[in-house]
Amino acid sequence: MSLTGKHILSSDLFDRDELERLFELADLLVPVARGEQVTRVLEGAVMASLFFEASTRTRLSCESAFLRLGGAVTSTTGTGVTSISKGESLADTARVVGGYCDLVVMRHPEVQSIHDFAGATNVPVVNAGNGAGEHPTQALLDMFTLHREFDRLGKSMDGRRIALVGDLLHGRTVHSLMKLLTRYEGLTIACVSPAELGMPAELLELAAARGHQVEVSDKPAIALREADVVYATRLQTERFADKPVPYSDDFRIDRALVERVCTADAVIMHPLPRDSRSGSNDLATDLNSDPRLAIFRQTDNGIPTRMALFASVLGVVDEIRSSLRTASWYRPAFTGPDDAPFYRR
Amino acid sequence: MSLTGKHILSSDLFDRDELERLFELADLLVPVARGEQVTRVLEGAVMASLFFEASTRTRLSCESAFLRLGGAVTSTTGTGVTSISKGESLADTARVVGGYCDLVVMRHPEVQSIHDFAGATNVPVVNAGNGAGEHPTQALLDMFTLHREFDRLGKSMDGRRIALVGDLLHGRTVHSLMKLLTRYEGLTIACVSPAELGMPAELLELAAARGHQVEVSDKPAIALREADVVYATRLQTERFADKPVPYSDDFRIDRALVERVCTADAVIMHPLPRDSRSGSNDLATDLNSDPRLAIFRQTDNGIPTRMALFASVLGVVDEIRSSLRTASWYRPAFTGPDDAPFYRR
Amino acid sequence: MSLTGKHILSSDLFDRDELERLFELADLLVPVARGEQVTRVLEGAVMASLFFEASTRTRLSCESAFLRLGGAVTSTTGTGVTSISKGESLADTARVVGGYCDLVVMRHPEVQSIHDFAGATNVPVVNAGNGAGEHPTQALLDMFTLHREFDRLGKSMDGRRIALVGDLLHGRTVHSLMKLLTRYEGLTIACVSPAELGMPAELLELAAARGHQVEVSDKPAIALREADVVYATRLQTERFADKPVPYSDDFRIDRALVERVCTADAVIMHPLPRDSRSGSNDLATDLNSDPRLAIFRQTDNGIPTRMALFASVLGVVDEIRSSLRTASWYRPAFTGPDDAPFYRR
Repeated sequence: MSLTGKHILSSDLFDRDELERLFELADLLVPVARGEQVTRVLEGAVMASLFFEASTRTRLSCESAFLRLGGAVTSTTGTGVTSISKGESLADTARVVGGYCDLVVMRHPEVQSIHDFAGATNVPVVNAGNGAGEHPTQALLDMFTLHREFDRLGKSMDGRRIALVGDLLHGRTVHSLMKLLTRYEGLTIACVSPAELGMPAELLELAAARGHQVEVSDKPAIALREADVVYATRLQTERFADKPVPYSDDFRIDRALVERVCTADAVIMHPLPRDSRSGSNDLATDLNSDPRLAIFRQTDNGIPTRMALFASVLGVVDEIRSSLRTASWYRPAFTGPDDAPFYRR
Repeated sequence: MSLTGKHILSSDLFDRDELERLFELADLLVPVARGEQVTRVLEGAVMASLFFEASTRTRLSCESAFLRLGGAVTSTTGTGVTSISKGESLADTARVVGGYCDLVVMRHPEVQSIHDFAGATNVPVVNAGNGAGEHPTQALLDMFTLHREFDRLGKSMDGRRIALVGDLLHGRTVHSLMKLLTRYEGLTIACVSPAELGMPAELLELAAARGHQVEVSDKPAIALREADVVYATRLQTERFADKPVPYSDDFRIDRALVERVCTADAVIMHPLPRDSRSGSNDLATDLNSDPRLAIFRQTDNGIPTRMALFASVLGVVDEIRSSLRTASWYRPAFTGPDDAPFYRR
Repeated sequence: MSLTGKHILSSDLFDRDELERLFELADLLVPVARGEQVTRVLEGAVMASLFFEASTRTRLSCESAFLRLGGAVTSTTGTGVTSISKGESLADTARVVGGYCDLVVMRHPEVQSIHDFAGATNVPVVNAGNGAGEHPTQALLDMFTLHREFDRLGKSMDGRRIALVGDLLHGRTVHSLMKLLTRYEGLTIACVSPAELGMPAELLELAAARGHQVEVSDKPAIALREADVVYATRLQTERFADKPVPYSDDFRIDRALVERVCTADAVIMHPLPRDSRSGSNDLATDLNSDPRLAIFRQTDNGIPTRMALFASVLGVVDEIRSSLRTASWYRPAFTGPDDAPFYRR
């Protein structure tokens, strides 16, 4: 299969071979993402960045990835898209915008939106989040992070123990990730959440059907033992309105817990944003200088992952290697003050 | 006359020779607009995109056109321009922004704004809509569409029958278009609207004075017969507040009507957005696969038209032909799923 | 000292040698800023433009400066940064965005913000205004304007009489400027304001301690006599809420006053925006064609100043001279209709 010209709407699209091809390309693009090398393979190409719902992080990451390939971006944010308020269908918008660009990245609060949109244009559309639906580029960057972390640690992906922790019911990200995890072999997937916020049954069944060991638990302190990966998520309090949040301190992942239960080479991830306010039951900031904390390696990985995806969809993969040149501007040795240990250069 | 260095505030600026020069250049730029070729004639140039009123479609089209020429864009949207709320005059804003860029594209809700702005800077200013005033780049892309459609059909522009349909009173677009139509010879212009929403008298008189046949009607089913072009417009319901809208089903242009009254090679246009909600008295979506529907060829034409205009205003026309190179990225054969028939490659 | 890799948070960072190096570079970049020459030294680099508070002028100027160096920009405006509303710390935002770009320009309404942000990323951060704190790039462009105006007039910077006029209490800009002025020798600094809106004592003391003559006055008509520079500021009425504004017509700087008290080669500046509404006690528009009015030379100077700063921070200064090429597009001889007299080409 080739990704060239494809709409990227779901993480279902990626089998293991496709993932590995993509990660090989993303590895090659890491120095470009870091501003150490330059490629201009997409010079002249235009991406339309349509964020009908705010997501600054995802938007900046997608835009930067396209710019790093040498392309240009035209961008719109917010629901105040006037045409749509005048009764324009999303299909009309899609066909019109398709005539303005070579690639569309779209986020929209409604699940169906991305399908209506992509059905009305042949210009490739990349889903950057469709309501409670999917977020395939986030799942890809999560998997690319596993690929790089395990590579650093000399582990293979197959046979690992992955703990998914937190609000597994509302987290679109963790659902997309589950689908990709099942593409590998012999994993143990521990789903750790309050009972009310568990992983949807069909995803548990999918993992089991593909031969993985699935555990369900509400006890992080137990489930995290021996985990190769701890993937924490934020409680999506904005979805609870008045209901009391069924969350306890058990779900605060902080230095004390990690020191007590995690192995020395555990990889701790989070899709971000994390709730850093004091008392939040999320991934704590007292782990910031712990090299097991991979959350910023993870966000950094968003750039080469999205570059690799865009280059694949636009069919310029074969031109990249010969296009690379060294960047001449200053780049810090490490992006963050806590980056040095365990950060692969 | 040369357009180099001119402010583009009104469609009055364009006589027939100028239009034909511009369309020849736009024809050359179609492959660049489609992402099949690349030019970098404006590499290093900066456009300021100032949208004091939202218009996502026009903004993205203008920005993409400038990017496709190799330029860069800095963009601002919304009325929350802080300086102006602090008492800054539009003239000050204009002179300041003129020092930041090589070309300004501006939309503003007030008619006078564009004149105040352009009077205060020598950097070329392009009007992208000034309230109830003008929208010259829309009129140019409409005329370019006629040029390409008639070329495809082997017809000349002169002597054609053009039906303008809908709300002809409030439609800034259709007023700018009237002015350009009168630059040609021997047209029959049928203005079809409810009596309350008729074409302003001075525009009817202008057309008559320039020797065109003008018809006024409120019966689309009759006026559309033998029309070479049907230019439909949306009822601007946002301008009616509480008043009942004087519109009937007669103004719904759908497949049934088109099959019954239009010729086989009629060209059906619309400035978009159209109201696609069921029951709207606008151009119906059941025409989407009818090759006479030219509305997306029309929006696609916005890119090469605006590229041609920007290149002319910035005086780089003579460098374009030799600058063209083939693009290497993927581009679908057709931008929309319904594009294939009648779409000139 | 080298600026390469430094965060630019305060104008304290710049001593006289650093200022002169920067201005020499900015002089070289003036033709690029004006669209007469092109450089692409930052081709491939990405700047993140984060404006958590609106400031269209500053944002467009910073973005244009980075684009003029050949770089690309990804931009976000407004407080609606969703991650932060979900409890994300500014430190997390900083580390994440640092992984997306090579340089961050940030404006934020809170003084502490820029320090929290810059402390969490090694990617250089430029302060574009932190609440009542600093605005170092504005101070630099003001000093660069003095450098160019005095150079045109054959005056040296040392020993000049500088009158700062208006609301000297709330003006962040005039505070940053004071710090830079003290880097020179033997100035007379006249601080002219209503008593309630005087220059903070610590800044008066700093100037005195560095050997400058400091005068405090509330009589513009007297204090402006023999001034080499009149630096007017806008009364920040938005900070007064219900309190009566302690301002009189004495602070209106108009043609009548300037003709009466200023010398023939005075330089009249203003950080803009100015309040141009009739009756405002600000710099009057009847001076627009007076060549002593340097306010638009000043805003124009923002581009080469910020280009020089970004190039210095990113360590590409030595590549600029050899990278310059002539631009081929149209550029008006003068940016504004009143620019010709006294404007150095």
